[in-house]
Amino acid sequence: MGNVVSIDKHKRSAASVEDALNLLQGLVADDMALVNETILSRMHSPVALIPQLAGHLIASGGKRLRPMLTLAGARLVGYEGKRHAKLAACVEFIHTATLLHDDVVDDSELRRGQEAANVLWGNKPSVLVGDFLFSRAFELMVEDGSLKVLRLLSRASSVIAEGEVLQLTTSNNLDTTEEDYQDVITAKTAALFEAATQIAAIVGERPEAEEEALASFGRNFGIAFQLVDDALDYSAKQATLGKTVGDDFREGKITLPVILAYRRGGPEERRFWKRTLEDMEQADGDLAHAMRLLATHGAIADTIERARHYGAIARDALGIFPPSRIRDALTDIVRFCIEREY
Amino acid sequence: MGNVVSIDKHKRSAASVEDALNLLQGLVADDMALVNETILSRMHSPVALIPQLAGHLIASGGKRLRPMLTLAGARLVGYEGKRHAKLAACVEFIHTATLLHDDVVDDSELRRGQEAANVLWGNKPSVLVGDFLFSRAFELMVEDGSLKVLRLLSRASSVIAEGEVLQLTTSNNLDTTEEDYQDVITAKTAALFEAATQIAAIVGERPEAEEEALASFGRNFGIAFQLVDDALDYSAKQATLGKTVGDDFREGKITLPVILAYRRGGPEERRFWKRTLEDMEQADGDLAHAMRLLATHGAIADTIERARHYGAIARDALGIFPPSRIRDALTDIVRFCIEREY
Repeated sequence: MGNVVSIDKHKRSAASVEDALNLLQGLVADDMALVNETILSRMHSPVALIPQLAGHLIASGGKRLRPMLTLAGARLVGYEGKRHAKLAACVEFIHTATLLHDDVVDDSELRRGQEAANVLWGNKPSVLVGDFLFSRAFELMVEDGSLKVLRLLSRASSVIAEGEVLQLTTSNNLDTTEEDYQDVITAKTAALFEAATQIAAIVGERPEAEEEALASFGRNFGIAFQLVDDALDYSAKQATLGKTVGDDFREGKITLPVILAYRRGGPEERRFWKRTLEDMEQADGDLAHAMRLLATHGAIADTIERARHYGAIARDALGIFPPSRIRDALTDIVRFCIEREY
Repeated sequence: MGNVVSIDKHKRSAASVEDALNLLQGLVADDMALVNETILSRMHSPVALIPQLAGHLIASGGKRLRPMLTLAGARLVGYEGKRHAKLAACVEFIHTATLLHDDVVDDSELRRGQEAANVLWGNKPSVLVGDFLFSRAFELMVEDGSLKVLRLLSRASSVIAEGEVLQLTTSNNLDTTEEDYQDVITAKTAALFEAATQIAAIVGERPEAEEEALASFGRNFGIAFQLVDDALDYSAKQATLGKTVGDDFREGKITLPVILAYRRGGPEERRFWKRTLEDMEQADGDLAHAMRLLATHGAIADTIERARHYGAIARDALGIFPPSRIRDALTDIVRFCIEREY
């Protein structure tokens, strides 16, 4: 038994989000190969533009975080079948479809460090190939045959779309409250994380308590993940690492860092935020000034602090499962996603 | 028995597409009230913009042709339950989602005689509300619980998206063949007509021969419907009736009338088509000239002739069902959709 514990301790060598990702990837590598096969074979269409465009995004080095969560969850509950691989591919298809539509909606120029599909092929194919991937995801689910999974993912898809529309209505609106923001990210991001992990318990035919624990893990991890993502978009450290910052600022998105800084700022600062994010009158130096204001008010640090809160809930949700390498890898991935450089 | 026949003959009073539609609408009116209730209650969302935008399109006086086909098909096979109403609402949601995305893709300004949603609210909500309606359609299907229906409609949705992408790749390309065009309209239009009618046989638990007959009716009607739609877009008569013509011309869409006229024309005419539809250099008078060329080559009349061919197949497919008012109403609707003013 000492040995078992030492194995558990041994894997605690992850020192960064890359390490944690690598560790988790290693544990589910065989299953992920199956997922990738399914993705490649099922994004095929006789209409050549579809696999071209979808392949550009799918092959562009995304982390496959969501399908990885389905695979890891299945491992956690001791599932031994093959259904999880096909359903993990569904999750990635739904995610890819939303990315394609998001990039059209946001007029994005870059995605994963490459030119976005809407830039390379235009908005039209991006909308339609998104529709194709979304439909294909449902075809895969129907092949799997579980009405419970279909219910979960069709509901998640509606909620994601609602979250995206809600986000549009909060754009350029500094009256957006922290609760509004919470509603947006719970819907647009956490719903798919939650479904991805919950599916694992469903295919494993686990008791409701385990299903709820995995759903809670996914949901709270998803919220933490989006909070950190929104913080990093204003991170000086990210800028020095050569990553793009300020996308949300340029689009007039109202994320938590801004919500906090706006509320904590004086009249002059509020005029600055209104000019740049509501009236969308942005000049050189405005992003740098915004980042200084966020730092002054501790808005980035406190956004990360909020993420830690949800990360802690996610990790504790897994407490009902016995200790294992996969459980530790899942808690590590949450910890390192929150503590990544900012 | 003489009386029964006379009832069948009696309904043959339809003298126009409006009459035929009214007749069919009258026969399924009670069920359509249920469909409308379902549509209104299920397009609801706490995110107010969703029912606003979806309601604008759904309330704008579409013919509800596709759900009507599901209801009429169910009546034809003697189905007495209520499942068809919910599934007909799914069909309308999928149709509405594709209209919203089409209008973004085509930069449309009008839809059903009103300003299109993308004009009133912008492209972003149109894309996202389309996604919502599409997801909601799958939620409704899952509530119904038939994997066979889910398989049918998820497949139809993929095929529709493939058809839309294929249409994009034929845009501005006069090398598009009649077969390519056939592939586009079979996928983008006929697939949903086919699914709409086939569903009726599935909920009615009818033998495969009836399911295939209804599928064939829907598919061939859908092809005929799109052929006529594409002919009407260049119809001088439509122009005198105050309807918009020339949308396809302005967008550089390659539809059958153009394919026929291009192949039948001489070098100078082909240069005209290349300039206006490939190079998209259009000047005042070009649409009128295009309509003259189409008339010279009988391209509109022959497009309608092709539609009659598919209409005949559709009507004959229903031959395995005993004569009835609903069967006659279905064959009438096909006839009048083809013979409407052009």
